Amino acid sequence: MSHNYQSQGNKRLEDKSVRARMLISCPDKAGIVAAVSQFLYEQGANIVQSDQYTMDPEGGMFFMRIEFDLHELEQRLPSLQEDFGRVADRFSMRWSVFRAARRKRIAVFVSKEDHCLLELLWQWQSGDLDAEISMVISNHEDMQGIVESFGIPYHYVPVTADTKAEAERKQRELIAGKVDLIVLARYMQIVSPKFIEQFHNRIINIHHSFLPAFVGGKPYQQAYNRGVKLIGATAHYVTEELDGGPIIEQDIQRVSHRDNVAELKRIGRHIERIVLARAVKWHVEDRLLVYENKTVAFV
Amino acid sequence: MSHNYQSQGNKRLEDKSVRARMLISCPDKAGIVAAVSQFLYEQGANIVQSDQYTMDPEGGMFFMRIEFDLHELEQRLPSLQEDFGRVADRFSMRWSVFRAARRKRIAVFVSKEDHCLLELLWQWQSGDLDAEISMVISNHEDMQGIVESFGIPYHYVPVTADTKAEAERKQRELIAGKVDLIVLARYMQIVSPKFIEQFHNRIINIHHSFLPAFVGGKPYQQAYNRGVKLIGATAHYVTEELDGGPIIEQDIQRVSHRDNVAELKRIGRHIERIVLARAVKWHVEDRLLVYENKTVAFV
Amino acid sequence: MSHNYQSQGNKRLEDKSVRARMLISCPDKAGIVAAVSQFLYEQGANIVQSDQYTMDPEGGMFFMRIEFDLHELEQRLPSLQEDFGRVADRFSMRWSVFRAARRKRIAVFVSKEDHCLLELLWQWQSGDLDAEISMVISNHEDMQGIVESFGIPYHYVPVTADTKAEAERKQRELIAGKVDLIVLARYMQIVSPKFIEQFHNRIINIHHSFLPAFVGGKPYQQAYNRGVKLIGATAHYVTEELDGGPIIEQDIQRVSHRDNVAELKRIGRHIERIVLARAVKWHVEDRLLVYENKTVAFV
Amino acid sequence: MSHNYQSQGNKRLEDKSVRARMLISCPDKAGIVAAVSQFLYEQGANIVQSDQYTMDPEGGMFFMRIEFDLHELEQRLPSLQEDFGRVADRFSMRWSVFRAARRKRIAVFVSKEDHCLLELLWQWQSGDLDAEISMVISNHEDMQGIVESFGIPYHYVPVTADTKAEAERKQRELIAGKVDLIVLARYMQIVSPKFIEQFHNRIINIHHSFLPAFVGGKPYQQAYNRGVKLIGATAHYVTEELDGGPIIEQDIQRVSHRDNVAELKRIGRHIERIVLARAVKWHVEDRLLVYENKTVAFV
Repeated sequence: MSHNYQSQGNKRLEDKSVRARMLISCPDKAGIVAAVSQFLYEQGANIVQSDQYTMDPEGGMFFMRIEFDLHELEQRLPSLQEDFGRVADRFSMRWSVFRAARRKRIAVFVSKEDHCLLELLWQWQSGDLDAEISMVISNHEDMQGIVESFGIPYHYVPVTADTKAEAERKQRELIAGKVDLIVLARYMQIVSPKFIEQFHNRIINIHHSFLPAFVGGKPYQQAYNRGVKLIGATAHYVTEELDGGPIIEQDIQRVSHRDNVAELKRIGRHIERIVLARAVKWHVEDRLLVYENKTVAFV
Repeated sequence: MSHNYQSQGNKRLEDKSVRARMLISCPDKAGIVAAVSQFLYEQGANIVQSDQYTMDPEGGMFFMRIEFDLHELEQRLPSLQEDFGRVADRFSMRWSVFRAARRKRIAVFVSKEDHCLLELLWQWQSGDLDAEISMVISNHEDMQGIVESFGIPYHYVPVTADTKAEAERKQRELIAGKVDLIVLARYMQIVSPKFIEQFHNRIINIHHSFLPAFVGGKPYQQAYNRGVKLIGATAHYVTEELDGGPIIEQDIQRVSHRDNVAELKRIGRHIERIVLARAVKWHVEDRLLVYENKTVAFV
Repeated sequence: MSHNYQSQGNKRLEDKSVRARMLISCPDKAGIVAAVSQFLYEQGANIVQSDQYTMDPEGGMFFMRIEFDLHELEQRLPSLQEDFGRVADRFSMRWSVFRAARRKRIAVFVSKEDHCLLELLWQWQSGDLDAEISMVISNHEDMQGIVESFGIPYHYVPVTADTKAEAERKQRELIAGKVDLIVLARYMQIVSPKFIEQFHNRIINIHHSFLPAFVGGKPYQQAYNRGVKLIGATAHYVTEELDGGPIIEQDIQRVSHRDNVAELKRIGRHIERIVLARAVKWHVEDRLLVYENKTVAFV
Repeated sequence: MSHNYQSQGNKRLEDKSVRARMLISCPDKAGIVAAVSQFLYEQGANIVQSDQYTMDPEGGMFFMRIEFDLHELEQRLPSLQEDFGRVADRFSMRWSVFRAARRKRIAVFVSKEDHCLLELLWQWQSGDLDAEISMVISNHEDMQGIVESFGIPYHYVPVTADTKAEAERKQRELIAGKVDLIVLARYMQIVSPKFIEQFHNRIINIHHSFLPAFVGGKPYQQAYNRGVKLIGATAHYVTEELDGGPIIEQDIQRVSHRDNVAELKRIGRHIERIVLARAVKWHVEDRLLVYENKTVAFV
């Protein structure tokens, strides 16, 4: 039995079948790290990577992410989880364990703009995005060919003002039991509160501005009108408040007075795809915790 | 007589006494570049650098900045300006010519935070900021020593709710006829509309957020509350609308969930001083044109 | 007849059929801008964008790029070029004029890594890369399917130590008369001096390091060994000196001690595709001039 | 007794008198995290921040940095250190503990360029650099006034080819027993191997290029000659090999063909001071471990 620690970077020697990730949130208290690391040591697990964060030293929340390796993980995980209950109870933890070998299943929702979808497909194809893309759902037919050329099912679900409820019903049927994460890759329809509730903190949207600047429609037009010198993109979890959910990642690019709205859109497409791809990658690698309206991102 | 062109970068051989900068705005029309460059050629001037921009090809505005060298500039500038009137009239130009050797005189207004002021002083001392810092005006006494050690007059003008009008009267007395540009380097008092009108597009403020996100007070607290992943700073000309004037420059720095408000402020200080220093540098080098509520920045 | 100027940014209203780009290099001398702009004005051309640069004010070289619009461009270009000869002779110019509507034809050479090729294909498909991709030539068969799905011919030309000369002969046959630019998009074979000479300053390579650091093979391994905190990529014109040609564009990304060689490669792929795509875009938009071993990039 | 964890970011509530930092290197083995965290828990210490890294999972090195709070730290540290010996022996650790309240004492060596020195002085004055600047040593008299205005002793030690050994003897006298870290803030003299050995991994130099590009003299001239599109700066520990020591931090800034050597120097000054200040900050906060010729930077 090997108890070696592995660095995050040493990908070449990783055996994903023995790798697990544990996410913990609890009120802060002394001894948490000792208790968790001692527990894992006694189970025979090797801590590969460990990150922690405390919001506030006095009565604040504590957050932790641990990657560990455990021989015969799949068989032993149920008993490990049961045993961990004692530690968890002692510290009033909310926690989850994920097997790295169990790749998250993604449904990508898209409308007419293809750049965010294509970036996800290529990162998936190259192995950079360690997930399954289970299906693409679109209110347009445009991308059927390219998506199917990747061997991924494409569902065309048209949406009009009248058929909105019916369309969402159909979408929910398509994903029922088959999807862990929904990615809105420039999907230009509003998702219903009911849908959002069902996929709480499991719907990621890309907004084409540096939030909270330029909430709502036509953010590049808004940015042009205000004469900003940087434009941005924001990936966030979707909540009922439009463009108001927990921010996962943001980035920007420099623009100048020379760039009109069309040019801002062109430049913005590049930031959008990069920012969205990072956010999705972090989610499927279990690097994100949400607390109140913020993300803790162990990246 | 030498008619050589000089590049912007070849600073070592520049003779500032012969260098002038011309800024032009006018409705777009054919032949502007030809007319201006032909005029300067006939005057014996050498075009060193030339930038242009058109907002809209159909009936839009045209903007131009030309650096040129002219032998015996100081003596010959009045007649050159008179002669240029004919070209200007033909194209309905608004225009100005500035001698590079006539350095702009700056009054820096500051409250308690010193980082923006110190950056300006250091860039001024090292020669990177080609301007005169004529005086520093503050509603606190804290920085008197350091400012005077640079040989710059420091005026302590306390401001309270009751003495606001009186304080501004005193400030205006101090700067009357002595100042071309006012820089609000983290000056935490509101400047009156009358003052703003008098120094139209000649007051630069640094706002400690990526505008238009987080207008108004406590932007770092606002940024913390929203959970953003980048914080920014914005240098802009001051207009009557709070934090609403033409944006000159913006930049950002990456932050994470680990950074509390105090840490955001510390990180932000670095961006603020860089962004403000860039904006001031561009202004004193006559690189900025304002049209409606935007800047054209030839940088 | 409209003589309006157009900004670089106002893409929406551009009529490419009337747009031309002129590149000029000559010894610096007074009156060049006036002569060129006056000439174009008299031809009825509208200057849309103009950039200039002088290496050294005393006896240095002058470089200029002008975009202009001319009614009935295709028919009138031959006589314009003939007439411009007089201006060119006066200043001993080397110069060219390109019609924007005549898109440059590219042959992409690739080996096994697909990220750079895919970025070019995507930017081409989205219209961001305003060129024709005439063919892809590879010493491997791997990417035949994906390339042909874009409707682009794919030529598999295997290369071994023994067949090197024969392979190059075949490549040159394939591109003869059909290609304006060769892009080595992670093509891992050395190109012969004869080939380089034929496509002088028309072969762009992407080197996976921040040149001149890490010339030669396995740059990511070299970077890892040296413990750098940033990794980079460099797009350059290919000359006989390995990795020694004129640099067109470079960019970097932050790394840490955690990143092993595999991780550096993964991170680097992203920079490589961005940097190469920028360089190719600038070349096909006639934004690059080469002088001695440097590029003047009007971007 | 409070056992709360504190985040790195929550600076406002930190009580530095109880804060310690532990740095550990050892061959990788199972149970290290559990053993260390259990030990600290039993001592009554609160882990505030914890970072770890393993170079290679099979027989590689393990590195760890822990910040913890301990009531009555100063009195109890000797016994804690003695007790920790048992844990350290079990894992063959090299380790150190530093009290945060014991600020590192810095001697800054400088020649004629003041920008790096001034950045350090200002960050020190504003509290961003949590260290003591014990003295400034220079082979020129230029900065005596400014340094002494900060209340810091300035020692002028001229160096000529003939007096080199004598000058170094004098420098070593000045710092004997008074200095924990030497910062070469654009100090243009070579330091002797003997000196380097005495301050092993405690001399930080700023090199004005992106190492390993442009080793040696006149890096900006070298960069200009090669036509790079980015220039950089590198902070590294000084070893006998010129510009070859472990890299601590690097950063870059974009330049263009317009920037001549003088302009590259001006732009570079800004990167140099930022990069050096970061490296010094990380060193005095005990965030750096050196292994072979690389740094592990827990930042």
